[in-house]
Amino acid sequence: DQQIDLAVVAGDGIGTEVVEQGLRALEAALAPSGTKVVTTEFDLGARRWHATGETLTDADLERIRQHDAILLGAIGDPTVPSGVLERGLLLKLRFTLDHYVNLRPSKLFEGVTSPLADPGEVDFVVVREGTEGPYTGNGGALRVGTPAEIATEVSVNTAFGVERVVRDAFARATKRERKHLTLVHKHNVLVHAGHLWRRTVEAVNAEFPDVTTDYLHVDAATIFLTTNPSRFDVIVTDNLFGDILTDQAAAITGGIGLAASANINPDRTAPSMFEPVHGSAPDIAGTGKADPTATILSVGLLLDHLGHADEAAVVQAAVAADIAERATSSSVRTTAQIGADIAARIAG
Amino acid sequence: DQQIDLAVVAGDGIGTEVVEQGLRALEAALAPSGTKVVTTEFDLGARRWHATGETLTDADLERIRQHDAILLGAIGDPTVPSGVLERGLLLKLRFTLDHYVNLRPSKLFEGVTSPLADPGEVDFVVVREGTEGPYTGNGGALRVGTPAEIATEVSVNTAFGVERVVRDAFARATKRERKHLTLVHKHNVLVHAGHLWRRTVEAVNAEFPDVTTDYLHVDAATIFLTTNPSRFDVIVTDNLFGDILTDQAAAITGGIGLAASANINPDRTAPSMFEPVHGSAPDIAGTGKADPTATILSVGLLLDHLGHADEAAVVQAAVAADIAERATSSSVRTTAQIGADIAARIAG
Ligand SMILES: CC(C)[C@H](C(=O)O)[C@@H](O)C(=O)O
Ligand SMILES: CC(C)[C@H](C(=O)O)[C@@H](O)C(=O)O
Repeated sequence: DQQIDLAVVAGDGIGTEVVEQGLRALEAALAPSGTKVVTTEFDLGARRWHATGETLTDADLERIRQHDAILLGAIGDPTVPSGVLERGLLLKLRFTLDHYVNLRPSKLFEGVTSPLADPGEVDFVVVREGTEGPYTGNGGALRVGTPAEIATEVSVNTAFGVERVVRDAFARATKRERKHLTLVHKHNVLVHAGHLWRRTVEAVNAEFPDVTTDYLHVDAATIFLTTNPSRFDVIVTDNLFGDILTDQAAAITGGIGLAASANINPDRTAPSMFEPVHGSAPDIAGTGKADPTATILSVGLLLDHLGHADEAAVVQAAVAADIAERATSSSVRTTAQIGADIAARIAG
Repeated sequence: DQQIDLAVVAGDGIGTEVVEQGLRALEAALAPSGTKVVTTEFDLGARRWHATGETLTDADLERIRQHDAILLGAIGDPTVPSGVLERGLLLKLRFTLDHYVNLRPSKLFEGVTSPLADPGEVDFVVVREGTEGPYTGNGGALRVGTPAEIATEVSVNTAFGVERVVRDAFARATKRERKHLTLVHKHNVLVHAGHLWRRTVEAVNAEFPDVTTDYLHVDAATIFLTTNPSRFDVIVTDNLFGDILTDQAAAITGGIGLAASANINPDRTAPSMFEPVHGSAPDIAGTGKADPTATILSVGLLLDHLGHADEAAVVQAAVAADIAERATSSSVRTTAQIGADIAARIAG
């Protein structure tokens, strides 16, 4: 029988609550095949930092590496200075474990009311680069706190880094019905990085001649996400533009409570990490108001990544059915109730 | 009698057509006061570049400086390599003439159908920094075209540059009814630049104690622009985030055909520049399909900047009335007809 060794980083705020429901869905999905899930919990985030000053030690990383995948809830808390946990924990995981494909599907499920008056059919996926761009932490500050202060942030883009994520995006596009890839950047201003991205998309297109491509400046992309989101099939873009566009994409498809994400290391040299797009929402932590759906959908991505495509489809279908029913019911369910209902559907 | 010396850069594509209608509105607005408009046309953009290889010479700049203001149509054409005109002309004007306040009002006019199902009342203004951030052109590329290529883009942020634009944003906020300022950045990732912006907003707030402030990460800001745009009053943000958010803001308020902008040098050491947010739209150039409304609204901002607040209000009211009537009519007007109708309303 198979076994999945899962590192669980529940994290802060609502992280614990949504991860609990994600695990429930995971176990329900794998039960029929007899695949066992063995979890190791990692105490990382605000609590640990307050207690020890540590964010993510080399020893933590070494232990996390021994797992098949990571399920992450949410990181961040207002009591911790901004950037400490984001850079020192969340981004450190993404960078060290080489999660160069940050995958974020956007689907308007039946039964979800979009804030757009006429969204049309929305079903696209953003392939956000995860290990370069303005997220590298390059840059710094001089004369901080004086009138002569200067602060820089350096976006780093390499042929190595851009090519591998672009190739992954093409590989995803070629498997989809529309086989269309949109590069989003800002090459009329960020000419060096932008032209590298553009040339790379052109070059890799030769390997995937059945995929059609187009290009949008990031500012124009926000317009189309508002006026015609169904035009998108696969979007490939850099780390920062991907961050921005996927939140907007979540907003038009019913909110970040439904937005899943996968931080994938396609070369499998380290475990990939699955997390909802939303944050730790400390204002509703402990109230049972958190929606675990994004985490459960992320579990679907996890199953798919680990070769359990059928189980992934079951999870996705169960979530879709649950969401469809929400539209017809006025009852407000707790985090645990939603998790239980979806797990029950998965169990069939 | 007064006189306004106006530098006119019609530029590419629909630029000529919309600028013509902008000038018509300007003259109509100033006629009652007897203020004359003396225009000097500058042949800048794709045509000039193809003919001479020049984008913007020192001599051009010297002549432009002699004017009270600049009216710009649109810059850019697919026949010119990406970045040449944007960096060499448009951004060169903004940077050299120290247009550090890039002002972009967003208003949902009566009669405009927003793509949002329930937009509420939308009436905010984005104060986008115009001379720093990722737009400085700092950075570069090494080993271009090889597998070892590396391209960097450096976002440059100085206390000098951030403080002056933040102060301008507070000064605008304090004059508005709601007196609310939202800083948009990404200080949990771009920690050096982000913390400079954050500290600066806190410090300058002391000079404007009646203004309330809050902070949003740029990704969260795109969500609120979708789900609750009426929460915004004044937004202050960096050059790139401002570029992105103002296109999204234009989309939710009826499109870039209605979005005005002002590149302001508040110290008046050089002429300020007024331009629609839209581009040169070569696909519809010459067809009479371009909407001159954004240019005419930009003329309103120009009048305001030059101390003609009453005339600015007349232009704004004429546009609002014209837009309200569009909703009740099915007739399609040409660029010139819209311009004529608005000019007639201005003339009263
Ligand atoms: C918390 C933050 C560092 C993170 C990011 O910017 O990537 C988040 O916004 C996300 O999109 O996963
Ligand atoms: C054309 C381009 C350089 C410009 C910008 O990015 O500022 C445009 O998008 C704008 O918003 O005025």
